Amino acid sequence: MNNKVVVIGIAGGTNSGKSTFVRQISEHFGDNISLLSHDFYYKKRDELSYEERTKINYDHPDAFDNDLMVAQINDLKEGKTIMHPVYDFSQHNRADRVEETKPSKVIVVEGILIFAIPEIRDLCDIKIFIDAPADVRVLRRVKRDIVKRGRTVESVMAQYLDTVRPMHELFVEPSKVYADVIVPQGGKNKIALDMVYVKIDELLKK
Amino acid sequence: MNNKVVVIGIAGGTNSGKSTFVRQISEHFGDNISLLSHDFYYKKRDELSYEERTKINYDHPDAFDNDLMVAQINDLKEGKTIMHPVYDFSQHNRADRVEETKPSKVIVVEGILIFAIPEIRDLCDIKIFIDAPADVRVLRRVKRDIVKRGRTVESVMAQYLDTVRPMHELFVEPSKVYADVIVPQGGKNKIALDMVYVKIDELLKK
Repeated sequence: MNNKVVVIGIAGGTNSGKSTFVRQISEHFGDNISLLSHDFYYKKRDELSYEERTKINYDHPDAFDNDLMVAQINDLKEGKTIMHPVYDFSQHNRADRVEETKPSKVIVVEGILIFAIPEIRDLCDIKIFIDAPADVRVLRRVKRDIVKRGRTVESVMAQYLDTVRPMHELFVEPSKVYADVIVPQGGKNKIALDMVYVKIDELLKK
Repeated sequence: MNNKVVVIGIAGGTNSGKSTFVRQISEHFGDNISLLSHDFYYKKRDELSYEERTKINYDHPDAFDNDLMVAQINDLKEGKTIMHPVYDFSQHNRADRVEETKPSKVIVVEGILIFAIPEIRDLCDIKIFIDAPADVRVLRRVKRDIVKRGRTVESVMAQYLDTVRPMHELFVEPSKVYADVIVPQGGKNKIALDMVYVKIDELLKK
């Protein structure tokens, strides 16, 4: 992988610790790496009402504009600066503004479903899957949604059983087979994080 | 982990690809690292007949002289050269000779059960578990034992179901929870192997 841009994909189930893991990498390397989240690429849904948009299954690969993400990863690989879309979670729709991401030797691409989408998976030179047992993940989700988001147990449970869990079983869990490395206890796993730091350091020095 | 000896533990189920993974690390770094296999430390069984020795459960933590291994890892960490025991698989007993292992900045300790033995596990600064699905592992075992060792399907099956599988479920699989990094497709996983190389390189340079 000498002298070329290396794409590191980081996937993992909901509440697996993936975001914490990625945030630490992002804080450690800052602008020395490029970071793209799959979430940036949720489809633009201007044709739907807010009410209709709340009913979309956001845990399915088709909820994303994967072609745009692939095109922008390729642009970054060619050394181009990109303007990536921004998603407005409060509106369940793409925001009007875009944000700049500059190219670098290491591109980190992260998202629950990225290994489940062949075109994105195939662009990842190093595939890291953050793993946590399903019961631990659901407990974290319950806590987050109830304590931080003020939702009821019933609504959290319904969403989890109706879409989150089936999509995890259908797309996320089977995509683990493509991982080169599996990281348990994602957010707090300092040893694995250090191994990724050392590898990125080596790539940036080349 | 600056300026100290780092112990890297590599565990994984039977026929998981662990040995291939470890062999590549050993060939890559040669004498720059110290390598100890748990297998070296199978207990001395002079008091038993050959027939009795063939009936021992070699997949159980008690089949090993774990205290001796711990003592020798600690000696290596203190910069001492050790003379480790050698196991003679043809005799199911410890051989009369010993072999020298020199200390180094990186000690790789490998074995199916090393994370299942708290005293050894606690000595490992980095814990890597080589993983493969049980059906893939058993197929490799069937092939190895029948093609290379000339055994019958019936004897392979009996050994697997009577001891190998129960010990795996009882000791090896539960010890995966202690891993910092899980490596699928151990022997052929060049990406994970490269990450371990880069980490060991960094440790050797310190």
